[in-house]
Amino acid sequence: MQADKPLHKLRTIDREIQLLTHTATLLQWDQETGMPPKAIMERSEQIALIEGLVHDRMTAPEVGDMLREAGFSSSGGIQIDGDDDKQIDRGFLRAFGRVYERAVKTPRRLVTEMARTVSQAQAAWVEARKRDDFSHFEPHLTRIIALVSEKAEAIGYPEQPYDALLDEFEPGMLTSQVKPVFETLRLQLTKLVEKIVSLQTADDAFRYRTYPEELQKQFSLRVLREMGYDFERGRLDESAHPFTTSLGRDDIRVTTHYQEEDLLSALFSTIHEGGHALYEMGIDPKYHDSSLGEGTSLGVHESQSRTWENLIGRHPRFWRYYFPILKKEYFPDQLTDVDELSFIRGINKVEPSLIRIYADEVTYSLHIILRFELELALISGDLQVGDLPGVWNEMMQKLLKCTPPTNAKGVLQDVHWSMGAIGYFPTYALGNLYGAQFLNTMRTQMPDMDDRLARGELGAIREWQHEHIHRHGSLFTAPELCRRITGEELKPDHFITYLEEKFRVLYDV
Amino acid sequence: MQADKPLHKLRTIDREIQLLTHTATLLQWDQETGMPPKAIMERSEQIALIEGLVHDRMTAPEVGDMLREAGFSSSGGIQIDGDDDKQIDRGFLRAFGRVYERAVKTPRRLVTEMARTVSQAQAAWVEARKRDDFSHFEPHLTRIIALVSEKAEAIGYPEQPYDALLDEFEPGMLTSQVKPVFETLRLQLTKLVEKIVSLQTADDAFRYRTYPEELQKQFSLRVLREMGYDFERGRLDESAHPFTTSLGRDDIRVTTHYQEEDLLSALFSTIHEGGHALYEMGIDPKYHDSSLGEGTSLGVHESQSRTWENLIGRHPRFWRYYFPILKKEYFPDQLTDVDELSFIRGINKVEPSLIRIYADEVTYSLHIILRFELELALISGDLQVGDLPGVWNEMMQKLLKCTPPTNAKGVLQDVHWSMGAIGYFPTYALGNLYGAQFLNTMRTQMPDMDDRLARGELGAIREWQHEHIHRHGSLFTAPELCRRITGEELKPDHFITYLEEKFRVLYDV
Repeated sequence: MQADKPLHKLRTIDREIQLLTHTATLLQWDQETGMPPKAIMERSEQIALIEGLVHDRMTAPEVGDMLREAGFSSSGGIQIDGDDDKQIDRGFLRAFGRVYERAVKTPRRLVTEMARTVSQAQAAWVEARKRDDFSHFEPHLTRIIALVSEKAEAIGYPEQPYDALLDEFEPGMLTSQVKPVFETLRLQLTKLVEKIVSLQTADDAFRYRTYPEELQKQFSLRVLREMGYDFERGRLDESAHPFTTSLGRDDIRVTTHYQEEDLLSALFSTIHEGGHALYEMGIDPKYHDSSLGEGTSLGVHESQSRTWENLIGRHPRFWRYYFPILKKEYFPDQLTDVDELSFIRGINKVEPSLIRIYADEVTYSLHIILRFELELALISGDLQVGDLPGVWNEMMQKLLKCTPPTNAKGVLQDVHWSMGAIGYFPTYALGNLYGAQFLNTMRTQMPDMDDRLARGELGAIREWQHEHIHRHGSLFTAPELCRRITGEELKPDHFITYLEEKFRVLYDV
Repeated sequence: MQADKPLHKLRTIDREIQLLTHTATLLQWDQETGMPPKAIMERSEQIALIEGLVHDRMTAPEVGDMLREAGFSSSGGIQIDGDDDKQIDRGFLRAFGRVYERAVKTPRRLVTEMARTVSQAQAAWVEARKRDDFSHFEPHLTRIIALVSEKAEAIGYPEQPYDALLDEFEPGMLTSQVKPVFETLRLQLTKLVEKIVSLQTADDAFRYRTYPEELQKQFSLRVLREMGYDFERGRLDESAHPFTTSLGRDDIRVTTHYQEEDLLSALFSTIHEGGHALYEMGIDPKYHDSSLGEGTSLGVHESQSRTWENLIGRHPRFWRYYFPILKKEYFPDQLTDVDELSFIRGINKVEPSLIRIYADEVTYSLHIILRFELELALISGDLQVGDLPGVWNEMMQKLLKCTPPTNAKGVLQDVHWSMGAIGYFPTYALGNLYGAQFLNTMRTQMPDMDDRLARGELGAIREWQHEHIHRHGSLFTAPELCRRITGEELKPDHFITYLEEKFRVLYDV
């Protein structure tokens, strides 16, 4: 009984923090989707102000006192494994306490300075990419690297500064755990890419015909709806870089980016973001307005988005259902000479290429490994921002055997660094691994998954994800969730096996 | 020197208040333009939280201390008439002090309760109007009337509670000053309407043909651009009820509402909101981020929007330039049998009608007088919300000789009450008066105004407004501004004369 009162007060504070955070998120969403260009200077001040207020709420002295009164000492010590009736309270204490621990160590000045810097850096990145001019973005990125390095030192880390950054997106994961996993991935994927490229007979020329934006939009909306995305609780907009964002417990929006000369980029972006959104939309309402009311880690989040984009969205049976619809109802002229098998092979073409978000699912993780290594070098000081374009291009040649013709198609392609998100990229590759490991379990529990896909029944998949992943929000950590679902720790084997099996069937690789 | 330090601190607080206010405005703008429907409950909490924070900042004890140290005693005592170098400081003290005086008297609970109530009431109003069901809105409006009455008592008033509400929108104006002006207006306008209706030969059937939304939008955007609206500092969206809103010093957005079966409603809404936006966009940057950085009163604001909509936008010479463009480039089929004179007569057709925002400029103020009288009766307690639809219809019959067939076309037509804006409507009619009085001066200073209009030169008009009105923000009060520009107090004569003259020329009335 005694510990209940501080817990209740903490929940009230947490609720206010959620409201403020969602407000800051609207300021950012609007900046990305429709804000008039000259509004950027004040917008960055608005965001800095709200994020400063969040920091103030979070780090008020009484919050520390209440946490202690509620029995919290360190988020590291709390395990949620049983299903007893106190687990939600313990989960809340752990999740809230974890954010508190990071926040109290971060000076307020750094929080508002970072918010202001990234808001302006994002606008500069958009402009730099448009003009293919890295120098327009360089000073912003230099400032961001300095700020996140300062943040890492302020927060502290078990082994190296990058740990503190990675921990924001993938709680508890260490750089030294990621490294060997990525090393295995690099070796296995490089081998697999070579093998597939030498044997495949895919021709994806059809995807680069002209596909009017309006029709792409209608088809994307249809698939999003059939995945189970709730348009009463969200909407689809356009932005330079597709994203998903929560502006409220019942306001989870996705964006995409149409290209008339590419049938698939907007569609797969929409499916990807839809996967993120299903996670957030599926969280049990009892966690709403609290720190438990969001996805547990970005790795698990990416497992959901990348499962929908690739494991489902590029599955031959998915297109057994959707290809006739796409061809007949949307693009009969453009697809007149394309049959189902060539379509499926085409959308699964493996080819080392320049742009991460358009990469096939085999080469994709190599793009991540490149970014991970560059981030490590930037944070350790081994690499200067000014040298980044050159080193990027060298590594692209090494890992993916191609060199970007422009910085817009190279180092400037991603929004993340302009958002101050250093330590974020690894979670995409971890998401591939979580996704394949979860799918492996789902398949044993749902042996008729392929048949359902062929009938366009996406509901059963969403429900399985909802039952095992979505509804829990952040109650379980990523490793706890992985053990609960699959009975194992995370490992790269399932992903590699999945890829080998898929391309064996597609091409007799 | 001694008074400078508190002034500097007050300006810092004021700046933070502006940032928070603009943030709350984005939350509202988004609610009106694109928020998913189920997000409304949390959105109302978000807005309530931010408005509560604004109230906290404004009413912190040190604000009162600083105001006193800076020499402020009451906003009523400060006059800005000369052009000395201290007038900005005095103007700032008056504007900020005025808001402070209202805020300290308003309990915080009332502020957040009001914010929460109106956010939900707006969503309920949209739904009620759609379903033509007043009972769906009634409990919300009842709550709003109770809250604004409580607010009026808390703030206090010179003569009657409605004074406290009117003062929010038209600082210093008393109910007892508005009444006789409206009485004169009612008598004069009723006579004029009768006279015009009996003599006019206008046929506006052409405006109700089918005009595709996309083309209406293109033409609206064109006129808005040529008025001088800066699309780098704003954007045009759609909402149930058109409005203009400032989300930042460089982010002034307008909305409109297209109807394919009406050529003019969206266009004149756009021009109207554009007039508001030019005011906000034209404020001298030295007033940005401060209480001086917005229009000085809603009456003056409406003078700008209604001048653009009617005195310019319905001027025969305006269409000398735009009609051939509209007919040739946009709607050649729909306007094939319409010539310039019948078009001009058509868009100036005077006819008592149901909907305020579509009313002609002669009957328009009668719609306002109706709302003013109903608001007075609601606040005095003489009228209950439940009786409103019936009384509305009776008064429509009395003042405008027509009875709404549905509540959607009657008492539910306007958004204002759902926003808690009681005391707002009178400013529209005051805007008509200010507008005509300002125009009278502009004409003497710019004798070739008509010729410029006929050549599509809207810039000179905007520049005159900028020089005499826009750039000053809230430095001068509405009465001060009126005296500076016209050398007179506000009076209805100029408006009546303007109408008589206009319709004399159009129809030999």
